[in-house]
Order: sequence, then structure tokens, then C-alpha cells
Amino acid sequence: MPELVAGCVAAGVRGVGLWREETAAYGLRRTAELCRSAGLPVTSLCRGGFFGADDWYDDNRRAIDEAAELGAPVLVLVSGGQDGRDLDGARARVGDAVGRLVPYALQAGVTLAIEPLHPMFCADRCVVSTLGQALDLAEPYPAQAVGVVVDTYHVWWDDQVWAQIERAGRAGRIACFQLADWITPLPAGVLLGRGLPGSGCIDLGRFATAVDAAGYTGPVEVEVFHELVWQRPGAQVLAATVAGYRSAVGDR
Amino acid sequence: MPELVAGCVAAGVRGVGLWREETAAYGLRRTAELCRSAGLPVTSLCRGGFFGADDWYDDNRRAIDEAAELGAPVLVLVSGGQDGRDLDGARARVGDAVGRLVPYALQAGVTLAIEPLHPMFCADRCVVSTLGQALDLAEPYPAQAVGVVVDTYHVWWDDQVWAQIERAGRAGRIACFQLADWITPLPAGVLLGRGLPGSGCIDLGRFATAVDAAGYTGPVEVEVFHELVWQRPGAQVLAATVAGYRSAVGDR
Repeated sequence: MPELVAGCVAAGVRGVGLWREETAAYGLRRTAELCRSAGLPVTSLCRGGFFGADDWYDDNRRAIDEAAELGAPVLVLVSGGQDGRDLDGARARVGDAVGRLVPYALQAGVTLAIEPLHPMFCADRCVVSTLGQALDLAEPYPAQAVGVVVDTYHVWWDDQVWAQIERAGRAGRIACFQLADWITPLPAGVLLGRGLPGSGCIDLGRFATAVDAAGYTGPVEVEVFHELVWQRPGAQVLAATVAGYRSAVGDR
Repeated sequence: MPELVAGCVAAGVRGVGLWREETAAYGLRRTAELCRSAGLPVTSLCRGGFFGADDWYDDNRRAIDEAAELGAPVLVLVSGGQDGRDLDGARARVGDAVGRLVPYALQAGVTLAIEPLHPMFCADRCVVSTLGQALDLAEPYPAQAVGVVVDTYHVWWDDQVWAQIERAGRAGRIACFQLADWITPLPAGVLLGRGLPGSGCIDLGRFATAVDAAGYTGPVEVEVFHELVWQRPGAQVLAATVAGYRSAVGDR
């Protein structure tokens, strides 16, 4: 955590998205103090969700508390897999669960951001598969309480995503914008197949332009999940990330 | 090939979909004669497509010829990956290529069936990712020349698929209906992760009911791509397939 924070500050990166596990490992309060004293805002906390789990309600309230303590305006929700064969039912359950969390999130000042995950995760990680679905689920609630994540890795294949980004912008619901690039072949389990920005086949610049045009002015989070990238020294990866980002979407 | 054909006949399976590689290995004419003399119709030939390849035009005409020789009414098209970062362009290229093949297909009496593949294949195998897209691409051409494939494995995650199956039925464009089940975790490369019907998370019965309701009266092809299944004796796999099929969708 100290290496990450110092690296971001040194590289001129102006914010960082954190995950709960790593934050807990370093200590929640310690992480919050570290980021605050470094002047590095926490842009989002990943992840709440998994609404099929028995303790989803308590666990998500804890995640909201953690986001609030970190000063993160956004809790990213990975909504959980299908659990059975009733996909419509599983999707409806996500909507109900988000609704139950809304009062708590509003009170904490944390926006719940529903993240559509790539359809290859529909069975086991997230039944919300498109930006349109995420927006449908968010719609009953105030935008301050429930937004969506636009993550290039998950939605790049969708020909309807451009219209849905416009829709999300009009509704003020783009709570988080994440850049990750698609590389092949996919590894077993398909979780750790994301390359550095620019190394894959996604037109990242088009997404950056689209969220800009939709009125999004928040941070851009770059996500890289890949064993080979993770084996490299952090500072080197951060430098490559910044370079890849600049080359893919320009200076913003 | 003889084992396959004899097995289907013995099991009361009334047709078989073939792949080009295996057909060529046994011999095209020999395969055609084998199926004909066994009274086992070839329901489709897999696959044409891959329109990014240099020789796509000649290769697809050969595939049409092969389907005609086998008496297969349908050539399944796997349209090819993105090849660069211009996804809209790649999709438009598929439409153009299909259009160029239409006269040849009509003359041969073979329907070109555009198969939407799961979005996880968008980069490297098929830029047609939804049934809606496949129908949009087919629309300019007569239904006799260009139809679509409904393959449960590729479209089960899509909440718009039910409306698109109705649309496909109204237009008389369901050229092929394939059942395959989704199991996790996905293997590296994600090609060989399909289980026997009933072993996965797809509501196969709902799909069978939907294509029935859309007026489809053609064969149901079961596809199983899995190393562990392929290692078992053919007759055993065929019996398990028939049992899984009956249990998942009933006697039809």
C-alpha cells in the first residue's frame, strides 16, 4: 500500500481505486490516513455485491462503511452469478438488493455503482451483463445513490453501449469509468486476462471520448488483471500503465 | 465417421451436423454416401465464415459446395474476429461478405446461417455477438439464402434474445437451432468449455419452447465441446447426450 501510494504520487497519478481485501490487509484506518496524508484521493472501493451470498446485506453495509472511511465516493458492485437456471430471477434479485441498500448508502454519502460484467461472467460472477441492464436496475433510485460503472473490458463488444453511455450521462449515473484492454487468448477461469491499456483490441479512445461527451468529468481508473503484469515491479507497471493510457486516450 | 453414423442410427437420432475438417478427413463423397445409405440426413455443415482470411471467398464457396454434396441445407458461418480495433468496420465487412456469397448459395440451395458467438469470442473468432446483430446482417437478403443460428451457449445471457427469437421466427430465418450447456470454470482459450445438456446453467427448455413458439420445426443439434467428454467412448457420450437432452427439453 505505501509503495502504491508513493508510486502514484511520484507518477503524477491523481487518485487511486482500492480493493477491500488489500485495504483490510494493510488496515482500513491506516490506508485512509496514508492516502489522506499523501493527498491521494481514493476514487472508488471495489467491491460490494455478490447478492447471492447469505450475508450479503451485512457485508455490503460494511463495504459502504469502508468506502466512507476511505473517503471513496463510489462502491463498485459486482452483483453475483446466476445460482441456478433462473437468470431473470437472479437479475431481479440484484435490483431488490440494491434497493435495500439505498438508504444506508445515501446516509453514508457513498454511491453504489452497478458494474455490468462481460457476459462470460454471467454464470458465476455477475448476472448484470450490459450497460443497459445496469441502467434499468439503477433507474428506480436517485442517481446520487445508484450509478453504473462503464468498464471498457466488459462492454466493448456491445453495439448498444454508445447509446447507453449517452443515456447514463443524461441521467447523471456514470459513477465510475474504468479502462482495461482485452487480450487473447483468455486464461483458464478468464479472470486474469486483461492487458495494459493499448496492448489489446479495444478502441479505448472511443470510450474516453464517449464518456466525455456524456458529461462525465470524474477520474479514469485503469485496471490491469494479469499474472504476468503482476509479476513485474510495481513502479515499472505504473509507468507502463501511464504511458499506455496516454498513448491510447491522449492527455486529458 | 462410420462409428458416429452407426451410433446415431442405433440411438434413434434422426440427423447429424458435421464439421468440414472431419468430413474432409474421411472424404467428402464417402461421408455423403455413408450418411445417405444409412438414411441419416446431414442437418448442417460447420463452418464457413472467417471473412478476415485472405481466401475467404474461395473457401466459403468450397464450403457451400461441400454442404450441397452432403445434402446439408445449412452452412453455419463463424464470421471471424475483429482484426484491429475497428469493431463496427469488422461487422460491416461480415455483411458485405455474406452478400457476395448469396448468389452462389442460392444456386447451390444452401442457406448461409450467421451464427452469433458469445461476446467472449468477439476479438478472435466472431464479431457477430448477438442474435439481433445476426438478424440485422441477414435482413437485406432472402431468408432462403441467409438465416441465423440460435445456439443456446452463445446467447443465453442476453435478455433481448427472446424478442429476437420471435423476430427470427417471423422472418423465417431460424436456419439452425443448437443446444449446448454452459459450465464453469472456463478453460484456457474458452473454446472447449461446453458440457452435456443439463450439466450446466442454461435454461435449455426455455429456448426449445421459444424456438417452437417462433415456428421453428427443424432439427435440434446438440453440441458438446469438452476435452473430458471427448475422451469418453463415443457411444457412451451419445447415450448421455440423448438422456441429457430428453431430461432438459423433454420428448419433442
